[in-house]
Amino acid sequence: MFLTEPEVYRLLSSYGISVPRYLVFRRGEFPPWNTFPAVVKVVSGEIVHKSNAGGVLFVKSREEFEQAVSNLAEEFPSVEEFIVEEELSGIEAFVGVKRDRSFLHVLGAGTGGIFVELFEDVVFIPVKSTRDEAREQIKKTKLYRLIEGFRSFKGNLELFLDFIEKLKRLLAEHPEIYELDLNPTFITESSVVPADGRALLKEPEKRRKFRPLSDRVFRPESVAVIGASVNPKKVGYALVRNLERFKGKVFPVNPKYEKVLGFRCYPSVREIPEPVDCALIAVPAEIVPAVLRECGEKGVKLAVVISAGFKEAGREELEREVVEVARKFGIRVLGPNTLGFMVPPLGLNASFSTTLPPEGEISFLSQSGALITAVVDAAVKESIGFSEVISLGNQSDIEITECFDLAVRSSDTKVILSYVEGLELGWELLDFVGKKPAVFIKAGRSEGGKRAAASHTGSLAGDYKVFKDVVECRGGIVVDSLEEAFDCCRFLTAYGRLRGNKLLIVTNAGGPGTLAADYATSFGLELISVEPVLEELSRVLPPNWSRINPVDLIGDATSDRYRSAFEILEKLSWDVCLVIVTPQSMTDVPEIAHEVVKLAERSGRAVVGCFMGGNSVAKGVEILKREKIPVYPDPYRAVNSIRRGVWSVQSSSEERREKA
Amino acid sequence: MFLTEPEVYRLLSSYGISVPRYLVFRRGEFPPWNTFPAVVKVVSGEIVHKSNAGGVLFVKSREEFEQAVSNLAEEFPSVEEFIVEEELSGIEAFVGVKRDRSFLHVLGAGTGGIFVELFEDVVFIPVKSTRDEAREQIKKTKLYRLIEGFRSFKGNLELFLDFIEKLKRLLAEHPEIYELDLNPTFITESSVVPADGRALLKEPEKRRKFRPLSDRVFRPESVAVIGASVNPKKVGYALVRNLERFKGKVFPVNPKYEKVLGFRCYPSVREIPEPVDCALIAVPAEIVPAVLRECGEKGVKLAVVISAGFKEAGREELEREVVEVARKFGIRVLGPNTLGFMVPPLGLNASFSTTLPPEGEISFLSQSGALITAVVDAAVKESIGFSEVISLGNQSDIEITECFDLAVRSSDTKVILSYVEGLELGWELLDFVGKKPAVFIKAGRSEGGKRAAASHTGSLAGDYKVFKDVVECRGGIVVDSLEEAFDCCRFLTAYGRLRGNKLLIVTNAGGPGTLAADYATSFGLELISVEPVLEELSRVLPPNWSRINPVDLIGDATSDRYRSAFEILEKLSWDVCLVIVTPQSMTDVPEIAHEVVKLAERSGRAVVGCFMGGNSVAKGVEILKREKIPVYPDPYRAVNSIRRGVWSVQSSSEERREKA
Repeated sequence: MFLTEPEVYRLLSSYGISVPRYLVFRRGEFPPWNTFPAVVKVVSGEIVHKSNAGGVLFVKSREEFEQAVSNLAEEFPSVEEFIVEEELSGIEAFVGVKRDRSFLHVLGAGTGGIFVELFEDVVFIPVKSTRDEAREQIKKTKLYRLIEGFRSFKGNLELFLDFIEKLKRLLAEHPEIYELDLNPTFITESSVVPADGRALLKEPEKRRKFRPLSDRVFRPESVAVIGASVNPKKVGYALVRNLERFKGKVFPVNPKYEKVLGFRCYPSVREIPEPVDCALIAVPAEIVPAVLRECGEKGVKLAVVISAGFKEAGREELEREVVEVARKFGIRVLGPNTLGFMVPPLGLNASFSTTLPPEGEISFLSQSGALITAVVDAAVKESIGFSEVISLGNQSDIEITECFDLAVRSSDTKVILSYVEGLELGWELLDFVGKKPAVFIKAGRSEGGKRAAASHTGSLAGDYKVFKDVVECRGGIVVDSLEEAFDCCRFLTAYGRLRGNKLLIVTNAGGPGTLAADYATSFGLELISVEPVLEELSRVLPPNWSRINPVDLIGDATSDRYRSAFEILEKLSWDVCLVIVTPQSMTDVPEIAHEVVKLAERSGRAVVGCFMGGNSVAKGVEILKREKIPVYPDPYRAVNSIRRGVWSVQSSSEERREKA
Repeated sequence: MFLTEPEVYRLLSSYGISVPRYLVFRRGEFPPWNTFPAVVKVVSGEIVHKSNAGGVLFVKSREEFEQAVSNLAEEFPSVEEFIVEEELSGIEAFVGVKRDRSFLHVLGAGTGGIFVELFEDVVFIPVKSTRDEAREQIKKTKLYRLIEGFRSFKGNLELFLDFIEKLKRLLAEHPEIYELDLNPTFITESSVVPADGRALLKEPEKRRKFRPLSDRVFRPESVAVIGASVNPKKVGYALVRNLERFKGKVFPVNPKYEKVLGFRCYPSVREIPEPVDCALIAVPAEIVPAVLRECGEKGVKLAVVISAGFKEAGREELEREVVEVARKFGIRVLGPNTLGFMVPPLGLNASFSTTLPPEGEISFLSQSGALITAVVDAAVKESIGFSEVISLGNQSDIEITECFDLAVRSSDTKVILSYVEGLELGWELLDFVGKKPAVFIKAGRSEGGKRAAASHTGSLAGDYKVFKDVVECRGGIVVDSLEEAFDCCRFLTAYGRLRGNKLLIVTNAGGPGTLAADYATSFGLELISVEPVLEELSRVLPPNWSRINPVDLIGDATSDRYRSAFEILEKLSWDVCLVIVTPQSMTDVPEIAHEVVKLAERSGRAVVGCFMGGNSVAKGVEILKREKIPVYPDPYRAVNSIRRGVWSVQSSSEERREKA
């Protein structure tokens, strides 16, 4: 169902949004309109692109107006109503709203006019955002530069934000709005007024309910393995073997065996004489509902359904049955078709991945199980530690957002890393996403990727741009690749997110210093001036030192020179210091690494290493990793991780360009 | 000196470029002009922005025309000449020319109009480009989409290229043009006509002369070290020590010693009884000219001046003297302030870097010496091999472009990697850049970076955007980071540049496959269809395989399944196949690596590995590296390297979007 232009105007007015002066009239009428220039349009729910259809005419006089009315009446014989309204001017903005399946209403805003599709200058803002968050989003667009003043254009950003706030209220109270186009909307220094309006209404889709997880659900004290096996080729064997290091109790279940890998084996979960918090289920798909019923009777809180052969294989009915049984008994279900989960601090590997990653403070939530095995394997090599790793599988019951909420509440998690293909509880995610440093990798951004994701887990990959914008608007970090994700996690586990963007670069090689400065400037980080300590530095550094930031200590710098420079540079006000080390002939890499650690400790500020090279820098890298100082092999990765770790760098970059 | 609008029009006309119908008249005249709408403008070399100054009036009738002439005469009392011309319409393009110090004339083209600065839709095209190259550049702009047809816009690309070709000819014959603005230029389906013209003339700057290097200059048979030392803390010691593995002859020179590190030491280069091809000079800066004179008398062909303390320390006079002496004796000089050079295939380390990298086919030319030590150290770890590594230093004589030309001619180099801060012989570089796969890292893109580069080598960092555009136009690859550069080199040494962009992805993990598909699509690579072999594949793969490209073999895939899939997929027409491997429980990584090698051999096409994880995939990675199959740890890096290796992917991506 459509709302026509006058209907939209009435709706907007009732929320205090300005609309043009207008008059609606019927076929055959020539109303007493005398404000010119004006626009005459057909009123029709069916004609979506009125302009393209010739249903919009600009008139400058009463004479032209009457002519236009006659023409429209003739050309659109089925149209009964027409509207005449004042012609507006100002900055032409694009404003549109769509209701996303996952995030519900999102507003799109950007530069309007004929080039809207050409330059794609649009940013999405979730209804669930603060005024400040909306402002930061707007700052990412070229529209912002027009509003701030560009050539003859100037608008009023705060008025535009008022307008957005009113729209948000309207949307919150009108869930039936599926699309709303206020395109163009004219912005001047004293007003924000849409010059058109069209809405499409649609009953809101039934959405999955958000069910908060209880605090200890992934911290069981006892784990049963249903479908345990003595055959090393079976998943039921791998699951028991992986639990050997678990500090809690392990109960294999299989009527065929007395013992599995030294653990006493039970014929049924009901016959285990002690309480069972968690059951790993690896039995044929058909008998999972029955097994789950037994778990319910036993009082199991979490069922991890490793078995595949459900929704992803077209058996949606069976999956629904699993959920029904679980709901009846109050069991939460992870999966089916999940790799399982891991809690390194408990030595708990409740998955069929052979490797348990190191302990740490990252919660890794993944909608791809296969990705987990690769990540865990790399984590061991790279000394990246996890508080938990959860494979979501088909998400029949537990959805990634519920795990995210739990990770926010969990005191052993500092950073949340999510690999997302499709998200159903996006609306709820927006409540949690800014509460802890969170990094997202979103797959399915392209048509190619979307098809691949669909064939992979059966979940529909949402619109990448909407996801990125709304998640970033609320404080999440959306990265491009796995490598980038881990680079960011290194920084975030060490320092969380930084409020300031003042960067100091210290190096023993000019080239990498220059590259780092390039990246920093293009990312909108601020290279602080070293002017205040120029004389002091010159006393301890060789005459050919750079005399600017990046501070080039020159190739023959040893740890002594790094230390002397650090001691002086500490007096300056920087938020983060990047220390670049290349292996020159005099470079005592491990000692320099120690100086970097000391600088971080003394200053209490963020310090990041970029140790370039291979074996010659390996010891230094090891020292920094051990001391939890983020360290990277390439200046790009170092500076990019810093950028991602700083709040709102993008917008301040825009501001800077604006001022330049 | 300026050229006014009518002067520019006359110049354009003489090269067959259409100009609007126009008439020039003097103050007080009302010429018999009767074509309307028209534009009346002041003619003045001094008024740069005529529109902003109010010196451009649009008129619709003779009456308005006469009024406009009177008004302009009144408002610009010092202006003596006026012009009236027909008002043009069509696509408003931005066309401008600047003379770059390094690349000489470059044309800028893009979408014009008031938003030109807002959207920065401009691409640079060097005068030294073919028509096809210019076409590919234009395709990167939004202007191209307008020309191809967007809303009511449509132009004629070939006419626009005709126009560019004529401009190129004009510029080639008018080196005195410093700036030329033809902004806006109107493009329609039948014409390309500038609606304004202004030129700034300036005497061409004196440029350094390109002096081709002789083929064997970096392949000496004998090397003298002037300033050799027995003190391990001195550079003169390191230089001799590094030559111990050299297969040619080594002559330390120092009057103080009889022997250095077992080599007989000579009091002067003149007293060496055999011919000396190359001299490494590590003596105080002041005596370098005298030493060089001795080298000249001895017949040395290449002097590598390791010593610092020249231009970079403000002593330009001394550096000039070095060059004068060298020219007099026909010696070529590398440096001063250079790390030296290395030729791994000869075991020649003519530098003070401690490590000689592995042998290979990459020529690495670097304007940062410190960067070389880091790169060489990393190269050992990553098994990246070099045919030569050259540190340019101050480039008093040998400039990076001359080395580039030599590397193009050299049969032992397959890929040229250049780290560039400032380039003087850009014009000449454009002759060589497409002749061999070439990767560039350009520092100094930002103001921050530029200042850093300036303080670092004293060379002025050019305009990053101009560099990137003109080098890419001629077939170079400009990357963002060192890591990306090496990723690209891996691909290029294996396969060179590919003409086709058809990609096949095979994986044992859905998530990484989806990510790879995302990257591929956003980079404009084409994911080929597997439809023709769907049935055949289904016979050898498990029922839940993906049935699309990316071909997901499912987590339990072993090398057998990879091989069966490969054998079928070989029948399809792909240019490059990306094989993703994650370490699942059944994954026999080394065997899969062997299958990848065999696929590459059998198919004779490009095959790339992405082996994700740590120790579990290490053996596979080693096998691929040994067999020279490019292998990457992250799908992003793999797909990005493929994208960079394919010609003109960007433009075909634009084409695709156009068609969609």
